[in-house]
Amino acid sequence: MTEDMRNIRLLLEYDGTNYHGWQSQAGSGMPTIQDSLEAALRQLTNEDCKTYSSGRTDAGVHAYGHVANFFTSRSIPADAWAPALNHLLPPDIRVLTSGEAPANFHARYSALGKTYQYRILNRRAPTALDRNRAWHVNSQLNIEIMRLAAARLIGRHDFSAFRGARCGAKSPVRTLTRLDVIERENFVEIWCEAESFLQYMVRNISGTLVEVGLGRFSPDDIERMLESRDRTEAGRTAPPQGLFLMKVVYPEGG
Amino acid sequence: MTEDMRNIRLLLEYDGTNYHGWQSQAGSGMPTIQDSLEAALRQLTNEDCKTYSSGRTDAGVHAYGHVANFFTSRSIPADAWAPALNHLLPPDIRVLTSGEAPANFHARYSALGKTYQYRILNRRAPTALDRNRAWHVNSQLNIEIMRLAAARLIGRHDFSAFRGARCGAKSPVRTLTRLDVIERENFVEIWCEAESFLQYMVRNISGTLVEVGLGRFSPDDIERMLESRDRTEAGRTAPPQGLFLMKVVYPEGG
Repeated sequence: MTEDMRNIRLLLEYDGTNYHGWQSQAGSGMPTIQDSLEAALRQLTNEDCKTYSSGRTDAGVHAYGHVANFFTSRSIPADAWAPALNHLLPPDIRVLTSGEAPANFHARYSALGKTYQYRILNRRAPTALDRNRAWHVNSQLNIEIMRLAAARLIGRHDFSAFRGARCGAKSPVRTLTRLDVIERENFVEIWCEAESFLQYMVRNISGTLVEVGLGRFSPDDIERMLESRDRTEAGRTAPPQGLFLMKVVYPEGG
Repeated sequence: MTEDMRNIRLLLEYDGTNYHGWQSQAGSGMPTIQDSLEAALRQLTNEDCKTYSSGRTDAGVHAYGHVANFFTSRSIPADAWAPALNHLLPPDIRVLTSGEAPANFHARYSALGKTYQYRILNRRAPTALDRNRAWHVNSQLNIEIMRLAAARLIGRHDFSAFRGARCGAKSPVRTLTRLDVIERENFVEIWCEAESFLQYMVRNISGTLVEVGLGRFSPDDIERMLESRDRTEAGRTAPPQGLFLMKVVYPEGG
């Protein structure tokens, strides 16, 4: 991070099925996306490039638009990092684009917001092709009721009831700016946007909305859950394979 | 196939990525969908159930609606075969539904038609999540020109120029009843319907339409290709991972 180093920003897509999430887990021997990316960077640059990420993802979670940055002294042209890294990365991780960022750009601290999609296959029959890309819910979901419940979660709240036990965030208050429930053929998509999220927050919201859609909770229960600030009052954690990080938003030119 | 045996019909979905197609390949040691299904049936019934299929699929090709049938003396209720088989099958093969069929039902010979979808991801950036579910074409396709070319293929033609070299069909004449080119976000879907198809026909048509969309052939070239009856005159064979068997149609009650 000395002044003569370049700050390179990467947009990544990955199939998280075979990874234990984004973040390196020192000594665990578990493959992570960050490990794979840093190994490819080491091979390409002969430097130890530490990567900064827009955030963590859980094991089995996918991304269409994860952002990472790193500092390097190498003179590889900014847009050539993507094809060069793709030659070295496994096929379930691709760099979509690469570019040079301002010295003060940080994939996490510069982010203005994130969009997640949680994908549910709602049909009786099981699935082969979507087994790692959706949560299969085989009872009929009531979409209208799920939308009413989602409306109660929009806005600024203490999301302690929707927060993973090992969440390290200082404050449990977050502002949900979008929570849409969209039907598309046999799929139900939950689209979720916020400036930032707590650990497991999208999966806990999705699991709770599914339980509302199955009649186990009512939209009125949402307020009780929020007020309780107690994780055990809300619904279950939706499984990881339905979750996709779609997009990270940055200031223009950021 | 004695008269006291029941004829059970299965609707299957599979992810063909890790298989060498549907059909057993005696002595090859290559895993096929048919092998996996017959192994599960053997485990369940203690009988050697030969399965009859709506058709073959190539290595790497997927299905949302493959149909197979087999004869059995076992008294398992018709709709219980699906969950029972799913306990024994690998997760990339699922039986969606099972039912009892008339004694003369044959998954291939009773079929009235089939629908395939060929899926193309048309964008510059590479793909991780769709690497086994689409053909990635990174130059912009001209969809309108592809539609003009598709219109020339609709109807009854000698499809020798679009037929695999080892195709065993007696006649190269087929009747295409649908060939639609549909845009959906970054994807281009080629939907293809006929009573039956020649070997590699959908992949050869899709490869040719993509070459038309890239400007390498014009819609007028399609007639020349058909008239030539020469495989080398038409376009390339599209790769298998973009092809999905969507549906097999049978007579009502058939």
